[in-house]
Formats: sequence, structure tokens, C-alpha cells
Amino acid sequence: MAYDAPVEDIAFSLEGVAGIGKLAGLPGHEAYDPDLIAPILEEAAKLARDILAPLNQTGDSQGARLQDGGVIAANGFREAYAAFRDGGWMGLAAPEEWGGQGLPRALALGVMEMFHAANMAFGLCPMLSYGAIEALLAHGTPEQQKTYLPKLVSGDWTGTMNLTEPQAGSDVGALVTKAVPNADGSYAITGQKIFITWGDHDLTENIIHLVLARLPDAPAGSRGISLFIVPKFLVNADGTLGVRNPVRCIGLEKKMGIHASPTCVMEYSGASGWLIGEANKGLACMFTMMNSARLNVGLEGVAVGEAAYQAAFAYAQERKQGKVEGVSGPAPILHHADIRRTLITMRARVAAARAICYATGVAADLANASKNPSERKSAKAREDLLTPIAKAWSTDVGVDVASMGVQVHGGMGFMNETLAAQLYRDARIAPIYEGTNGIQAIDLVGRKLALTGGASMRDMITEIDETVRLARSTNDPQFVQIADRLWAASKALGEATDWMLARLKAEEQDKALAGATAYLALAGDVIGGHFLARAALASRSKAADFRARQTALAGFFAETVLATAPGRVPGITEGGDRFLSSSSALFGID
Amino acid sequence: MAYDAPVEDIAFSLEGVAGIGKLAGLPGHEAYDPDLIAPILEEAAKLARDILAPLNQTGDSQGARLQDGGVIAANGFREAYAAFRDGGWMGLAAPEEWGGQGLPRALALGVMEMFHAANMAFGLCPMLSYGAIEALLAHGTPEQQKTYLPKLVSGDWTGTMNLTEPQAGSDVGALVTKAVPNADGSYAITGQKIFITWGDHDLTENIIHLVLARLPDAPAGSRGISLFIVPKFLVNADGTLGVRNPVRCIGLEKKMGIHASPTCVMEYSGASGWLIGEANKGLACMFTMMNSARLNVGLEGVAVGEAAYQAAFAYAQERKQGKVEGVSGPAPILHHADIRRTLITMRARVAAARAICYATGVAADLANASKNPSERKSAKAREDLLTPIAKAWSTDVGVDVASMGVQVHGGMGFMNETLAAQLYRDARIAPIYEGTNGIQAIDLVGRKLALTGGASMRDMITEIDETVRLARSTNDPQFVQIADRLWAASKALGEATDWMLARLKAEEQDKALAGATAYLALAGDVIGGHFLARAALASRSKAADFRARQTALAGFFAETVLATAPGRVPGITEGGDRFLSSSSALFGID
Repeated sequence: MAYDAPVEDIAFSLEGVAGIGKLAGLPGHEAYDPDLIAPILEEAAKLARDILAPLNQTGDSQGARLQDGGVIAANGFREAYAAFRDGGWMGLAAPEEWGGQGLPRALALGVMEMFHAANMAFGLCPMLSYGAIEALLAHGTPEQQKTYLPKLVSGDWTGTMNLTEPQAGSDVGALVTKAVPNADGSYAITGQKIFITWGDHDLTENIIHLVLARLPDAPAGSRGISLFIVPKFLVNADGTLGVRNPVRCIGLEKKMGIHASPTCVMEYSGASGWLIGEANKGLACMFTMMNSARLNVGLEGVAVGEAAYQAAFAYAQERKQGKVEGVSGPAPILHHADIRRTLITMRARVAAARAICYATGVAADLANASKNPSERKSAKAREDLLTPIAKAWSTDVGVDVASMGVQVHGGMGFMNETLAAQLYRDARIAPIYEGTNGIQAIDLVGRKLALTGGASMRDMITEIDETVRLARSTNDPQFVQIADRLWAASKALGEATDWMLARLKAEEQDKALAGATAYLALAGDVIGGHFLARAALASRSKAADFRARQTALAGFFAETVLATAPGRVPGITEGGDRFLSSSSALFGID
Repeated sequence: MAYDAPVEDIAFSLEGVAGIGKLAGLPGHEAYDPDLIAPILEEAAKLARDILAPLNQTGDSQGARLQDGGVIAANGFREAYAAFRDGGWMGLAAPEEWGGQGLPRALALGVMEMFHAANMAFGLCPMLSYGAIEALLAHGTPEQQKTYLPKLVSGDWTGTMNLTEPQAGSDVGALVTKAVPNADGSYAITGQKIFITWGDHDLTENIIHLVLARLPDAPAGSRGISLFIVPKFLVNADGTLGVRNPVRCIGLEKKMGIHASPTCVMEYSGASGWLIGEANKGLACMFTMMNSARLNVGLEGVAVGEAAYQAAFAYAQERKQGKVEGVSGPAPILHHADIRRTLITMRARVAAARAICYATGVAADLANASKNPSERKSAKAREDLLTPIAKAWSTDVGVDVASMGVQVHGGMGFMNETLAAQLYRDARIAPIYEGTNGIQAIDLVGRKLALTGGASMRDMITEIDETVRLARSTNDPQFVQIADRLWAASKALGEATDWMLARLKAEEQDKALAGATAYLALAGDVIGGHFLARAALASRSKAADFRARQTALAGFFAETVLATAPGRVPGITEGGDRFLSSSSALFGID
């Protein structure tokens, strides 16, 4: 069964929950017309269903391959990329000045969810290009922008991010790739980078690598890193392609999933590069792209989860086992209560993750475009707060939901080429790359809470309490029950937040970090439950079935997840003591 | 890094937690001497470490293959099996009468945990043989026992279980394989079976298939199924091998994991079979093996979890990233709080699952061997109650812990041939086979609770409350805190149990089954936490580090898992209403 994008759910989450309507009329989004949302999503859904989804399993079986010094994409990917490029999808959220459509980032997220769901290995390629576009927009010189942006925005070229080295993963500051100044103002880049997604391929005539490297006189650690543009083919002054730069893919990783996405070992042998942004400020430049890349990875969790849900739902309709009252003959397993519980669990978690990601996207758009400086500031704080949650919580959802999808398939789910099995394998990378989920938790507590003194989380909690008030004011018993659970969960999140802030204030960083992952999980649950409640409230103007579905999802999530929130505070506030204080007995170290 | 069996943990769990000591001196276990436990476990640990573990990753890469009509095991497996056979491991828990050692089943579980952890694909072969031995012991005629048991117990032959057909998975009653009586008292078996583990191989000269099939005049459904012995080679009266029976492996499944375990499509073309047990009572015979097989699959969850923990711990010691106070230069990631939280989570959950499985094994032994009929009866009730929990809860632990193991490895964990990735792939089958975990939940609620009116669960809860009393009576604040959490969790389990029983009494079967999986998860958590608390109490006589470790594991589990128990009752008691009542809006069906 092929992936068919849930256009109605995506549009509703963007409009009714994340509030994309707020972006209408803002500078840079002049082209944005709320009436465009549906047709754009419908068009993207066609590309996802007709072009990308049919290549998902063949891409998994075949994978990309390294041949004669270059990477060849799996069959059909070249043509699919051409369709993607010709549809103008790369420039959806890029400025019109550079050939883009100037539409909100949040809308592009809705589109990218579909592409990732249909074919995550494919989706990674534009995702990385978008990161390069953002870095150039934020930090490129006018000349750099003119040289690279039009071709990146049109999709004629793709972009990559080159951070990781064997000894420098989560600790980017440990990288050793060198950048030595040339006489002409360029730099000679030498070193090896690993885990470079779509680092080489035959989809486009050029690839623009953004590479972190170290100048000869750079300070040690993360304050001595600079960012460079290193094109595969140098670009002549007239825009034509010049000589081949000495940067090569020298190996492809054999991965558990996303086989059609080439994960390259890249060797830079004195390749010509150009500094982007300030010297030794490369990490800051990279962080510009990182927020956006992290949100996009979170979206992969949503996407893989949705694909897993659809595959499981379809299988549950087809597969017949056992008898069920009211069904003659063997019943589709969809009629068994336990299968239904699994399916509603999958759907509720995916919907919550989707809402978190889109709300982060709308916040990012507002932070850029709002005319009101204080709204820009608060939107930026919201984006900063939600980004690590969107990344970590949604990708954990992706893994768990993909695992549930395998389970619904029974023995068939364990066959390597069943879509459910592929999604289980594909999903597993998302909690790892773009900063492991542990790093996200450290970011949430050690930066996002610490730098604002908790203000951005308190604002979030105030908004949750407003949802509680709205739900109670309906006087509908279903909503009142959801409100009661959300209220208790919000108090739990507040309590855990106060504890975290007290630890940070007391400079008990180790205790705060020891509870960080459990804190992030709680925050994601409570914020996710809040968005589902908002969705249920917003759905009251919709058709009966749609309303009933949103209410069932919010109610189920409240009963099964929000209700556990108060009991999870001790795991955050006390759990760490066990492994901080018994480290010798547990780990053989002090 | 190679798997090294945690002999001390296994022995402690068997002795200090599951109470294997109770079996000393019982009929059938005359050979059992508690002083034998350590040397037997040590010897098994050597086989696991030196012979089986080194073949785990090569077996994964190479897999078994079908060639010239027969299955060839991965390189080294023949020799490894010979070492296993020559060590007498197959007969460890088999009666001395048939060449076994007459040791407790529970002790064999300790040994099998090691073999599964070292190489789950290998461990499946003896696991299935053991099932065949049990079926023959319980239901075979004296002649059948004499013909097959000595060779199965010695490991000269292996055994298989043939239940599944394409249309008959969880619904075994839908099978159509035919058994037509021959003039000589045998039956001609014709049909196709799928998902047959180690259905063919070149490790031994003969394979004894136990096959469910339908007699010509059999009633429809599960009451018309009979069990047959179908040897690969017929056995002559003098014990030598006769003609090749027309049963063949005609295909191998391409699976996500356990590649070295051949999963066969078996074709029976009028193969000679002999009825075992009564006609049309095959399912009951199969259930004899099933309890034991389910417990063994639960043990696979423990084993894969332990292997994943060891691999993650080793990686965390080696891999250096970032700076940590008190460590000069880049610190091993083991020093980061978040990695430690992950490791202690893995270890606590594995220890809890281990204790549940071993306690089930001791109950099974007591149910067979106790001299006291009322003890036999209560032990049987305990075995019946714990078996679905041991199977489902432990295999869910296996999947979750394997996923955490991948996470600790970062990008390396996603490389297909990293052990962590293999374990994530291998682990995923265990919640599916031998009755999906959803089937286990239905068994727990629909049979185990229903048939005893909840008495066996109430006995379990009484035992948990006794642990609470013991922990409180220590007056040690650490234990008192654990006791408080265990007490609240025990009340929650009691409340959920009462609700389940009320639904069953009111014939609201659908509501009971809608909450079954969440109820099983809660029961596993509470019972697991109880065993960890028991372990901590029992460890007070041990060395300081051991004691500190057991107390940290029990405390961490209490804070992070037991503390959530009260909040999980609504998910059981209310959650089902959402998907039972909104099925049209959610699933498009009434």
C-alpha cells in the first residue's frame, strides 16, 4: 500500500493548531495567501504519492553505490529529483529575491513531511540543501549569495553540511580539518569528514559543501572553527562551471536504514574553499542552520510515524485472523481491540509530534517576519525552546511508532523488505543525527532554560493553562476531563521546571543534566497533549467524524500519557542521584 | 567487544530472587545440588563467550542459505553446535532416564540466557529442540519416547515446531495442513508451513518436526487440530536412519534480523507422520510446549537486552567526546550524566525482566516437582500468571533496551554491522513470535485472570505487599522510599485488577481486552519492581559494591517506573472507551 499524504490533517494542524494564519501579510511573506495552503499541499501530496513513495522500497533494496569515484543514486531517484526540482519545491520557503516563492517555513514543513514520509532517503537531499540556503542567506557575502543562491534555490544544485570527523561527533570542537589561506583570498581545505548525507550523487551537476575547518592560527576547541563554502565544481565568474575541486567521496557507510541516501566519507585534498561569515565563528554560523535542521529531523519522526501508521492501518484492514462478534468469517485484525489500541496510540503520538513541529515552524517564521519586535523576541524564545523538543520527542515517537507498526504486521513485519520493517530501520537514525537526543536534552536544560531563567517555558505553561481554561469553559464532560488531566500535567511540568531552575541556580549542573532527558520527555508529552487538546477544541467547527476523531485522540492521549505526568516528576528530580552517587558500584568509575 | 556472561548477576537472580533453592531434594531433581549452580554457569559462560559470541556478527552478515534442497548453516555454526552437543547442554533439564541431567528448568534458563545473549540465532535451535522434548515427555507413547527422546536429549537430533500457515498465524485454528491415515497406523501429512525456525539445517543428521495438521473428519477450527511427529529421516526399528521423508524446506525468509537462524517455508508432500497425544487435541499438546517456549522467548528479551547493555557500556568506556570536570582531555562518554542514565535504565530493566523469567521458571519446576499438592497447584497458578508477562514484558524490554544501546553508540549504532544495530534488528522478532505480545495480553486477562477469578494475581500482590513490609522494616531510608513507591504501585495494580475482573464478570469482554496490553505492561512493571526490591533486600549480605548496585537499580526503577504506576490506571480503565466508541471516526468501521 502506498503512502497517501493526510492533507486534511496537515492543513488542520498548520491552521487550527500551529496558527499559520498569523503569518499572513508579514514582510517576506507577501506571497502567502491562506487559500494557497490546500492547493499547495494537494500538489505536494501528488509528488509524494506518485513519484517518491513508489521508489521507497526499491531504493531501500538497491541503495546508492560508489562507482568510478562518484556516487550513483538508486534507480529512479534522478528522475524523481528532476520532478521535485521542476515543481519548484526547493524554493518554496526561500526569498523571492533568489527565485523562491517566499512562503512560510511552516508551510514548507507540511510539504517536507510528505516527502519524508513517502521516501525519507530522498527527503534528506533537499533538507540538506535547505540548510545550505539558510546559511548563505544569513552569513554569505552578497557575492557568495549571488553565486550560489539562485542555483540552490532552483534545485539545480544541492547543498551539504560537513561537520563530523571520526573523533569529532557530538564534540564538534574536536575537529581537525585544516583551512590554509591561499594568495587569492580562498582557502585550501584538507581533511576527512564522515557521515556526510548526500555528500556526492549524480542528481545535479554541482554540489555545494558547507565545511567546518580550522584556520592555522585558530584557538583550540569550538572557538577556533570556521565555516567554508566548498563547491564540487568551482564556479566561474559568468556562472558556468569550472574545474573539479579536489573533494571526493571515498566511501559509503553500510547503514541499517535510509539505504538510498548516500552517507559519505568525504576527503578534502587542498580543495578550494571560501570563508563564510567571520573567521573562528563557524560554529555560530552552523547553529543558524542547526535549528532548522533539527526541526526538519523532528519532522522526519512525524513523517516516518505517519507512514508506519498508514501501513499498519492498511494491513489491519486486509489481514484476517480470528473471529469477532458481528463479523462473519475470519475478521480483519482491525476489529480486535488490541490492534485498535495500537493504532490509536500511533495516531495520537504522531498528531502530537506534528503539532509540536509545526508550532515550532510558525514560531520560527514569526521570529523572522513579525513587524512587532516584542513578538519577534517572544517567537524566537518559543522557537528556541521548542526546537530541541521537536527534534528529540518527535524522533523518539518515530522510532516507537515504527516499532508498533512492525508489531501490527506480526511475522510479516519482520521480513526485511516489508515497508514496516524498512520504516523501523529508517526511523532509528533520526534520534541520532543533528545532535543526539541526549544533546537535545542538554540543550533544553543547559541553554534554553538556563539562558532565559525559565521564562520561555513558563510562557509555554501559561499557554497550556489557557488551553485548560478554554476546555473547561466548554462545559462538555469530555473536554472537562481532558482539561483536568492537562492541568495536573501542567503542574507537574511546572514543578519539574522549578526543580531544574533551582539546580542551575545552585550550580548543580550535574544533577540538572542527569534529569534532562526525562525532563524533555515530560515536556514533550505535556506540550503534545496541550496541542491535541487545542486541536480537539478547534475541531468543533468541523464535520462530525473529524471532530470525533480529534476528540478521541486528545482524550486517549490525556488518559494514557498526560495522566502519567505527575508520577514522572520523581524520575527527573531523584533519578539522577542513583547513578551520580553509585558510579563506582555501577560503572566502576568515580 | 565480546559478550561476557554476567554469571554473578544470573546466579544471584536465581538464588536470591527467584528462589531456586526451594527445588533442592525434590523428585526428579535428585541430581540438583545448589553448589553446582556456579560451576555450571561458569562452564556455560565459556561456551557462550568463546564459541557462540564470536559467530554472532559473522552469522548475521552471512546468514543461512538454501542450496540443493537443503539449508546450510552459516560458517562455524556446525562446529559450534557440535561443541554445544558434546558439552551435554541440551539435556541439562531433561530427565536422567533419557540421558539428561535432571537439573531444574530454572537453571537451564540461566544457561540459555547466556546462549541467546551470545548468539540469539544459534540459541533458537536448542530452544525449539527443548520444546519437542517437552511435547514428547508429556504426550508421547513409550515407544515414541524411546525412539526420539535419547537422540533429542543428547542433541544428536534437533526438533522443530510447525504451527503457522499463511492464513493461520495468531489464529492457529485456521490451519489446513492435512493428515490422512495410512494402513500402517501412520499418517500422510500434506501442506505448507511457514516461519519454521531451524526447519532445516546441516548441524545434525536428523530433524524431528512436530506438526499441527487436520484429520479428514476433524471438526472445524481449533478443536480439529492434531499433533504429529514427522522426522526428516524415518527411524528404523533398530534406531538407524531409514528413508528420507518427503518434507522439504522450499524457501528461506529474508528477515530483518536473526539471519543465521533459518526461517523456513516447509513443504510436506505426503510425509509420514505419527499422531502424538489424542486426535483433535493437538492444540492442547502444543500448549504444553507453548508455556515453555513463551518463557524462553521472554528470556531472549533479557538476553538481547543484556548483550545490548554490555556493548553500550563498553562503547561508553572507549568513546571519548567532550570535556567533563575531573577528567583530563576528552572524556569517555560514560562520564556524561545522560549516558549514565541510559545505562542504568537498561540495566535495571534487564535485571527486572531476568527476575520475572527466572521466577516463572522456578514456579514451573515447583509445579512439576513439589511433593506438596497444594504447593504444586499454587506454583502452577504462578507459572500460568507470569508466563504471558515474562514473554511480553521481557521482549518489549529487549526491543527498548536494544534501541537505547544503538543510541549510546551514536552514528556508529546505525551502521548495519555494528553489534548494537544487529541486536536492535534481532530483538524485534521476540515480541512477535510464540504468540504476539497482544495475544499474551489477551491470555493474561481473558484466561489467566478469568479462569482463577483473579486469585493468582491477588496472591502475587500479597507477595508484593510482603516485600513492602520487609523493605520498611529495615528502617533504612533508601529502602523505605522504595517500599513507599512499591506500595502505591501495588495498590494501582490491585485497582486495575479489580476493574478487569469487574469487566469480565459483567461480560464486558471488549472493554477488558481493550485495556489488556496496558494492564500487562503495568503488571510487568510492578512485579519487576518488586523483584528488584527483593534483590536489593537480598543483597544486604553481599559485598558493598554489589549491594550498592542492587540498591541503585531498585531505587532507580522505583523512581522512574513504579512512581508512574498510579497514573497509568486511567489508561487501562478509560483508554479503551475512546477507540471502542469512536471506531467509525477513527477507523471507518462500526
